[in-house]
Amino acid sequence: MDNPVRVVQYGVGPIGLATLRHVLRKEETGLVKLVGAIDVDPAKVGKDVGELLGDGRSTGVVVSDDARGLLADLKPDVVLHTTSSFLGSMSDQLILCAEAGCNVVSSTEELSFPYDRHPDLSQTIHEAALSNGVTIVGTGVNPGYAMDSLALMATGVCADVTEIHVQRIVDAGLRRRPLQAKVGAGITSEEFAARKATGKFGHIGLHESLLMVASGLGWVLEAVDESLEPVISDRRVVTDHFTVEPGSVAGIHHSIRGTVRGKDRITLSLQMYVGAQEPVDAVQVVGDPPINMRVDGGIFGDTATLATLINTIPLALTSEAGLKTSKDLPPVRAFATSPTAAQMSTA
Amino acid sequence: MDNPVRVVQYGVGPIGLATLRHVLRKEETGLVKLVGAIDVDPAKVGKDVGELLGDGRSTGVVVSDDARGLLADLKPDVVLHTTSSFLGSMSDQLILCAEAGCNVVSSTEELSFPYDRHPDLSQTIHEAALSNGVTIVGTGVNPGYAMDSLALMATGVCADVTEIHVQRIVDAGLRRRPLQAKVGAGITSEEFAARKATGKFGHIGLHESLLMVASGLGWVLEAVDESLEPVISDRRVVTDHFTVEPGSVAGIHHSIRGTVRGKDRITLSLQMYVGAQEPVDAVQVVGDPPINMRVDGGIFGDTATLATLINTIPLALTSEAGLKTSKDLPPVRAFATSPTAAQMSTA
Repeated sequence: MDNPVRVVQYGVGPIGLATLRHVLRKEETGLVKLVGAIDVDPAKVGKDVGELLGDGRSTGVVVSDDARGLLADLKPDVVLHTTSSFLGSMSDQLILCAEAGCNVVSSTEELSFPYDRHPDLSQTIHEAALSNGVTIVGTGVNPGYAMDSLALMATGVCADVTEIHVQRIVDAGLRRRPLQAKVGAGITSEEFAARKATGKFGHIGLHESLLMVASGLGWVLEAVDESLEPVISDRRVVTDHFTVEPGSVAGIHHSIRGTVRGKDRITLSLQMYVGAQEPVDAVQVVGDPPINMRVDGGIFGDTATLATLINTIPLALTSEAGLKTSKDLPPVRAFATSPTAAQMSTA
Repeated sequence: MDNPVRVVQYGVGPIGLATLRHVLRKEETGLVKLVGAIDVDPAKVGKDVGELLGDGRSTGVVVSDDARGLLADLKPDVVLHTTSSFLGSMSDQLILCAEAGCNVVSSTEELSFPYDRHPDLSQTIHEAALSNGVTIVGTGVNPGYAMDSLALMATGVCADVTEIHVQRIVDAGLRRRPLQAKVGAGITSEEFAARKATGKFGHIGLHESLLMVASGLGWVLEAVDESLEPVISDRRVVTDHFTVEPGSVAGIHHSIRGTVRGKDRITLSLQMYVGAQEPVDAVQVVGDPPINMRVDGGIFGDTATLATLINTIPLALTSEAGLKTSKDLPPVRAFATSPTAAQMSTA
């Protein structure tokens, strides 16, 4: 790429701001340039993103609430999209980007593998991407990597696979405050049950990861069984944001199983709780040869989420048009790193 | 895929035969079908591949030495190509396949990332693939996966990467006889030195893996330094094929380093020797976040080599035309597994 990739950030909430910060850092490589930012929050519209980042410098990029006008004006190469976990509420934003001729890399969890939960919307988005010659992809560390595309790649050296079991254990105590709140750190078992009863509690994307793995292997699932249970703390845990007493909720154990030919062939087990002693990402493939892949310490999600978004940029730019998932694009790899920077320190 | 992928096996040496055996096993899934086999060995030409496999059944597929005629006649969807480790000696075979309109998945190590060692040939092959609308890809477990495309994918969750260190330790004693011979199991240090002096000893593909990782990260290497040393056995090791006495050669330690901005940024260390106690594939990414990925026990190469070839078939079929590497295609995943088989046992 001779010229820097021109990026617009769509959504400047916590994830969007963290993404912005890294895009700005990467500008020194000459490979990427932030040209615009979009958000509807009146407290942010009109402000320089440097001010929002609180780093005391002006970037010249001011938050706009006019998405259509800004994209038509700037014609960026790619939009980094971080406005929602749910597809239904924001598919119009994706269509708008496509109509403006922009590729989109989105953190929307439901977009990571949208075909099962949102077949009609998926088709609409795919057609909008196709007719405008752009790529739209939803990705992230989970869903989008740890429990799906990496798990699939673990099977790539197997002559046969009969089962695949994926485990992710996250020490929520090291993560940002919203995640600690999201997993229910410090609440009671009764409160956990009440939140669970709303149907809007737990990790978003496990269903998508399961379906992506099944699709990648060409397995048709006969049944899907999901469960969400509290992890009860056996001791007092104090994080920067919460205190969890013994006997109260430390976080969630969210799991899902997919059945093929009467057997649980794909299982995904996600534990996110404060005080987890041995964070890990693990993929066990029952096959020939068997594969036991581990990322010791686990993949640190706060950074990895925005990293996968940014790292997917060059893949989205060179992919054929359409709605894609992380299993359709080449293996994601780091983009615009320090050793490519013109002014890298010698440290 | 509604109809089975029609496959021709080009080369029925040890790897070709092992590949054939698995393609035939996978026919029960209805996703793949062996339709032809090519080899120039007079001892094999005219024989049914079932006879060559020694499994006492007739497949109806007879080995031909007329590659051009067979491909024109059968028009297979894909050729699995396993005739050589070196590109120079067999690029005509790839061109011939392309001219017959066939996609090619090849085990040729030098084809896994051919641009550095063979820039002109790479261009010729790419143009032949393009003009005939087919995909040509070289892959395997190493090169093609363990020390390059998997290592790249390990960086995909990193916001920054400054170094990457890849280690593969193989217990050659568990591998097929040619590999044990290839690594020098049982020879003396003097014999090792003599073989090394020929320049045709050691693992083929380490250079290609290094260049693929560098290319994937966009890093321009200032220097490449390769080393090949014997692993000396500290005890008596008896395999099915060789006896290694204490003080004699157990195998090789082959490594390569790539320098960017005055520092070893990419190192690949491959140890293949009989009696290795802790086989492993490990990727250490120095970055943000740091990543420590391991495949405990290592990836068993004999099976994984042919598995990656077969598993790359659907990726090659759906890729845009041209010469591709494993970092250009979607993450490889298992293809045509038992749970997709119509007559799978309930075990």
